[in-house]
Amino acid sequence: MRNYPTIEDILEARERLKPHIKHTPLLRGEKMEKALGCQLYLKPETLQITGAFKIRGALNKSLSLSKEEIANGLIATSSGNHAQGLAYAARMLGVKAMLVLPVTTPAIKIANTRALGAEVILFDGDTAARWKRVREIAAENGYAVVHAFEDPLVMAGQGTIGCEILEDLGDVDTVIIPMGGGGLISGIATAIKETKPSVRVIGAEPALTPKYFHSRINKERTSLPLKNTVADGLRISVPGQNPYPIIEKYVDEIVLVEDEHIIAGMCMLARDAKLIAEPAAAIGIGALLAGAVKVRPDEKVCVVLTGGNWNLCDLAEIYQLVD
Amino acid sequence: MRNYPTIEDILEARERLKPHIKHTPLLRGEKMEKALGCQLYLKPETLQITGAFKIRGALNKSLSLSKEEIANGLIATSSGNHAQGLAYAARMLGVKAMLVLPVTTPAIKIANTRALGAEVILFDGDTAARWKRVREIAAENGYAVVHAFEDPLVMAGQGTIGCEILEDLGDVDTVIIPMGGGGLISGIATAIKETKPSVRVIGAEPALTPKYFHSRINKERTSLPLKNTVADGLRISVPGQNPYPIIEKYVDEIVLVEDEHIIAGMCMLARDAKLIAEPAAAIGIGALLAGAVKVRPDEKVCVVLTGGNWNLCDLAEIYQLVD
Repeated sequence: MRNYPTIEDILEARERLKPHIKHTPLLRGEKMEKALGCQLYLKPETLQITGAFKIRGALNKSLSLSKEEIANGLIATSSGNHAQGLAYAARMLGVKAMLVLPVTTPAIKIANTRALGAEVILFDGDTAARWKRVREIAAENGYAVVHAFEDPLVMAGQGTIGCEILEDLGDVDTVIIPMGGGGLISGIATAIKETKPSVRVIGAEPALTPKYFHSRINKERTSLPLKNTVADGLRISVPGQNPYPIIEKYVDEIVLVEDEHIIAGMCMLARDAKLIAEPAAAIGIGALLAGAVKVRPDEKVCVVLTGGNWNLCDLAEIYQLVD
Repeated sequence: MRNYPTIEDILEARERLKPHIKHTPLLRGEKMEKALGCQLYLKPETLQITGAFKIRGALNKSLSLSKEEIANGLIATSSGNHAQGLAYAARMLGVKAMLVLPVTTPAIKIANTRALGAEVILFDGDTAARWKRVREIAAENGYAVVHAFEDPLVMAGQGTIGCEILEDLGDVDTVIIPMGGGGLISGIATAIKETKPSVRVIGAEPALTPKYFHSRINKERTSLPLKNTVADGLRISVPGQNPYPIIEKYVDEIVLVEDEHIIAGMCMLARDAKLIAEPAAAIGIGALLAGAVKVRPDEKVCVVLTGGNWNLCDLAEIYQLVD
């Protein structure tokens, strides 16, 4: 089986998903352009069903499985947004969803997942131990595992964002995409580079978890100690096995963003674009604010805002920092 | 001169504004539907240029004046969002803008108005005194006055929101609109009732400033003592002279909303729709939360979110209340 999505997989995903998800609007960010030095377009997956892009991949995979394969239920582990996406998919398909989440998951992501009818297990341990537990539960119960970023059909689902960007802004110059496990950027980069290779694709990674950045330098997948970036959705210590070669093939630049710039990005999006962004979603704006991405004033830059699922009280703490 | 906009005025406004403003998206509010008991559609003018709908009316009026009329500049008084709209229009037309704002105006609205190049005077006194000052300054300097809600061309500009709603959701059942001076609801109600009279049009007013509500009971424009609702954008003690008869003609129901439900609406929009709404903008959601509007589960209800210009630190205080 292939371990990467083709452009055909992504176009198929687009048709498969069309009746079920939102084509999120592309919003011009006029008010932020002077400060960021470019023509700014926001792709707010915060406005997607379940408040994050993850429903695209989870649903594309789930709809591609046979009735028999999903009959007993679906299972995954997630930092919280994939959990909501998979819970939504399972509810739509009328099957059980089981999600194994880190104990540190923001309460809103846990509550939203449960509100969609899924069973949630909170797990205290590292990623490897968590995955071991997922595989055990899956084997015991006959659940189908839907990996948040290793699965080519999940990547293809996320890649549909790239199609929508090209459709809504045919002359886009640059697209900036957050990097967690790497499924999102693998899908979008494939969609864009296989359609219009001249578009610059940039990945943004927290400076505290620079796994893809160092892997590129080292020319091999490099594991790093897990540090506690504010961007809970991007807290991963090693590049995805399947996303890594795709990213090396298609992503032009990988930039690092400090937590303080991620936070400044969240505040700027709230103040100037009236959008709630969780930290992971604000990293692209943080990259522009920090000057980590070189841009020209006439350059059309599209920033993907991945999700908005964060506790309001934690958002409040951050919004208090600036005014 | 007519003191109300016709549907033709609104359609003309639509063509006039098209190159300059955003057709804001209509967003399904899936996550809020269970709690609110209807099919929910949000019209987020928070995502409009300048972060509020007011640019529609201000720009429509300004573009309708002759070069000679606007040569010396434009002037208005405003609770802050009309100020930004008019400042934007003036900058676009290359003329001066002078805005007289209450001293209580949120800092972000003052800062945004100044950032658009306008001159701002902060005025300490009631609405009548403020208007006296505006007329004096206008007469001294030859400025054209652009009234925030009495002017039919301003109402026509705001009414373009009604056209967009009908275009994007032809089978809408009910539209809920905040009531401040009444210019917005006059424009939207005209657009909707002159196109599809079966649509129910509902105005939502803070329970602390129930001017239109009491005027309807009293069958005449009724002035009330000004109370300090959290919804700064709707703090007005008497119905607009020109909007009043339009509202009596076209608005099916006027409902009152307590500040606590306005605040709950702000939090719900942030948590479930990922949208920043200032208090005035959240009053429609507050009305549904409070049960002030009777709805059916299959009813398509569109709620107009007027603007998102509020200090982040004040938003933070409110978001802390719920989690």
